[in-house]
Amino acid sequence: MSVPDQIRADVDAAKERVAALHAELPRWELVVWTAGNVSERVGDYFVIKPSGVSYDDLDAEAMVVCDLDGNLVEGTRSPSSDTAAHAYVYRHMDHVGGVVHTHSTYAAAWAARGEEIPCVLTMMADEFGGPVPVGPFAIIGDDSIGRGIVETLTNHRSPAVLMANHGPFTIGRDARAAVKAAVLLEEVARAVHISRQLGEPQPIPQDAVDALYARYQNVYGQH
Amino acid sequence: MSVPDQIRADVDAAKERVAALHAELPRWELVVWTAGNVSERVGDYFVIKPSGVSYDDLDAEAMVVCDLDGNLVEGTRSPSSDTAAHAYVYRHMDHVGGVVHTHSTYAAAWAARGEEIPCVLTMMADEFGGPVPVGPFAIIGDDSIGRGIVETLTNHRSPAVLMANHGPFTIGRDARAAVKAAVLLEEVARAVHISRQLGEPQPIPQDAVDALYARYQNVYGQH
Amino acid sequence: MSVPDQIRADVDAAKERVAALHAELPRWELVVWTAGNVSERVGDYFVIKPSGVSYDDLDAEAMVVCDLDGNLVEGTRSPSSDTAAHAYVYRHMDHVGGVVHTHSTYAAAWAARGEEIPCVLTMMADEFGGPVPVGPFAIIGDDSIGRGIVETLTNHRSPAVLMANHGPFTIGRDARAAVKAAVLLEEVARAVHISRQLGEPQPIPQDAVDALYARYQNVYGQH
Amino acid sequence: MSVPDQIRADVDAAKERVAALHAELPRWELVVWTAGNVSERVGDYFVIKPSGVSYDDLDAEAMVVCDLDGNLVEGTRSPSSDTAAHAYVYRHMDHVGGVVHTHSTYAAAWAARGEEIPCVLTMMADEFGGPVPVGPFAIIGDDSIGRGIVETLTNHRSPAVLMANHGPFTIGRDARAAVKAAVLLEEVARAVHISRQLGEPQPIPQDAVDALYARYQNVYGQH
Repeated sequence: MSVPDQIRADVDAAKERVAALHAELPRWELVVWTAGNVSERVGDYFVIKPSGVSYDDLDAEAMVVCDLDGNLVEGTRSPSSDTAAHAYVYRHMDHVGGVVHTHSTYAAAWAARGEEIPCVLTMMADEFGGPVPVGPFAIIGDDSIGRGIVETLTNHRSPAVLMANHGPFTIGRDARAAVKAAVLLEEVARAVHISRQLGEPQPIPQDAVDALYARYQNVYGQH
Repeated sequence: MSVPDQIRADVDAAKERVAALHAELPRWELVVWTAGNVSERVGDYFVIKPSGVSYDDLDAEAMVVCDLDGNLVEGTRSPSSDTAAHAYVYRHMDHVGGVVHTHSTYAAAWAARGEEIPCVLTMMADEFGGPVPVGPFAIIGDDSIGRGIVETLTNHRSPAVLMANHGPFTIGRDARAAVKAAVLLEEVARAVHISRQLGEPQPIPQDAVDALYARYQNVYGQH
Repeated sequence: MSVPDQIRADVDAAKERVAALHAELPRWELVVWTAGNVSERVGDYFVIKPSGVSYDDLDAEAMVVCDLDGNLVEGTRSPSSDTAAHAYVYRHMDHVGGVVHTHSTYAAAWAARGEEIPCVLTMMADEFGGPVPVGPFAIIGDDSIGRGIVETLTNHRSPAVLMANHGPFTIGRDARAAVKAAVLLEEVARAVHISRQLGEPQPIPQDAVDALYARYQNVYGQH
Repeated sequence: MSVPDQIRADVDAAKERVAALHAELPRWELVVWTAGNVSERVGDYFVIKPSGVSYDDLDAEAMVVCDLDGNLVEGTRSPSSDTAAHAYVYRHMDHVGGVVHTHSTYAAAWAARGEEIPCVLTMMADEFGGPVPVGPFAIIGDDSIGRGIVETLTNHRSPAVLMANHGPFTIGRDARAAVKAAVLLEEVARAVHISRQLGEPQPIPQDAVDALYARYQNVYGQH
């Protein structure tokens, strides 16, 4: 099995993009060591990070290609151990072109309590359109993580889900949008956490949340 | 419409300054992704960051120029989505030559509670002359953010306002002074937050606040 | 006394590895100033950091070699003041090929309270197989630190121990594995701390902890 | 007035050292913007940072020289606005060869509450020999800051004092030792703060504190 010739150029371009986007994860302090992974869909395939490779060694060459069942199609290393979850999302959410998984610290802290992040900052209303929801506790090894992501995010404005006791997954129309959501998620997870340490943040009225979200999605054309 | 010839050189110099000052925002960890913006007034115009551009690509070339109503006068990209707020400040506060907006984490945390930062550090007395005030909740799309900034900071010593559920805006005689205020604001927002986590900070007597502020403004010639 | 010829090449290779791994300590913010040290076993010897040397000056040349009693065998500087603890571990734990000591902030905070870190994140279950245990209070100068590490970690899944009022020691099959454990330890110490600041994290069921640990150790072949 | 010829070479060497040591302040995140300063004594003079200069521009050339009354002796810029405090320390503490002042965040947080940092980590016992004390509230403009530092640190083991509502000053036999104390101070201020957020750290018995301090000062020859 190999990548069809007619998408060769698109796959190579996606490898460059996905490799460059991986550098955003340590840059914004979303990952330690080799944790975290970014993928991008190209037709019936997706490009993803190999397993257990240092962020220093993540160039386009190192990226691997899988089909939508998560089977390795191209690359000399094993795909990320989170590949099955990425594949499940691509199979079940047609509009998703990029997926990101991290264990970013403040998002993981909310996830360990199984508590959604309330929408108390305009940046949250803009990007997430309301609270960031919690997904079920699911362990690696079958489809349960992917299923939990899809069930939680289907018909939800938020491009981010906090998988309980685990960490966040984010989605987007492409890998860059999903990375952006991962970066903003950690920032709002941190700011709302800090705010609540000394009292209760003021809620934003629902009509203002709706207006901010509508405007932002329109201007920036997300999803 | 275009920039008049007689201020060409001043505008170009301001573009260089404003581009370089944008690098201070990620350097001091005041922004993530493409959030945050710096502007500087030049006559009846101001130089500001374009919308949605990565901090890696923010050179002088990329900066755009607007008139004081916020209309784009020069540049190939859209001005920052916060341009209307900057423009409102320049129209209503003659002594202001620079404006900065960020979502810096600790300042945003105080803003989400709608709580002013008490003046319990000499660094705060020096730069802000007392507590940092909170402005009204206002959503993007009309003049309400700019009006909230101007109403809060008029006749107030502080060059910084925490816009409720949103984040800080800072002003200065030029863009550098406004960036300095944004950097020091986040530092005092963090230090006072941390101090209050384990008890109540000791207030600084008002006469000492006044003496520190008078001396610092005199020495450094702020505002 | 000197390094036997037949392990010369292995010792030199270990010096390169250990020097490079020291750079991971400031990179992941586990150390300040000259604190922290990494060692790796080579036969009846181990390579370790010299005492009191800045991280800027830690190349392979600067590394020193000790025998398993902690005596200096090669190098112009004194070995790390924690050398006796490393040596004790190597003498008493045959499967250990690498040892790391840091004073990383959040791990030290749990250590100052003498409180183990509960296992509430899948990342913890993967790497540590359960809670991270606390070792006894022991002061430098004899074998008491080494003994405390060995007694705590023998027959324990965790490759990390929080020595009370002191800081973490981690072990691994080689220096890289021990550094990885030190990096992940600080990350889970931080995330679990933050989670508990606003409530009680949800425990992970023991069978899920066991399944995660078994799978991860199998895939990555740790220990 | 000018620097005597016989100490020309010593002053020039001190300028190089002090300039290089200023780079440690942002490196270890002890300062923002232009805050913070390092000085080193050379005979009846001391080298110190000029006022209000960016850390990017702090080379040896930029350093200024003052006499022990704080008068500018060499340099084109004004000395740091904290020069009088440095000078007071040098005049009254003969064994001090280096002074550092920062507003490092966690140290400032303890200082805002006017609360000493208890000795609950071996790193604190090593470097500070016990708790880090609080000095009086004193405002800039006369000798009161210098006097507060000297009164607090005289006959005290700690090379660091938390000036109330202000921030830390540290001393050492030379500038490098004072910078080291400033770096370790912020680290223990942070770790002890974090530890106390979730309970009460365990005290270290006084005889263990004494033994750790005696050993560390002997080995590293501090003060």
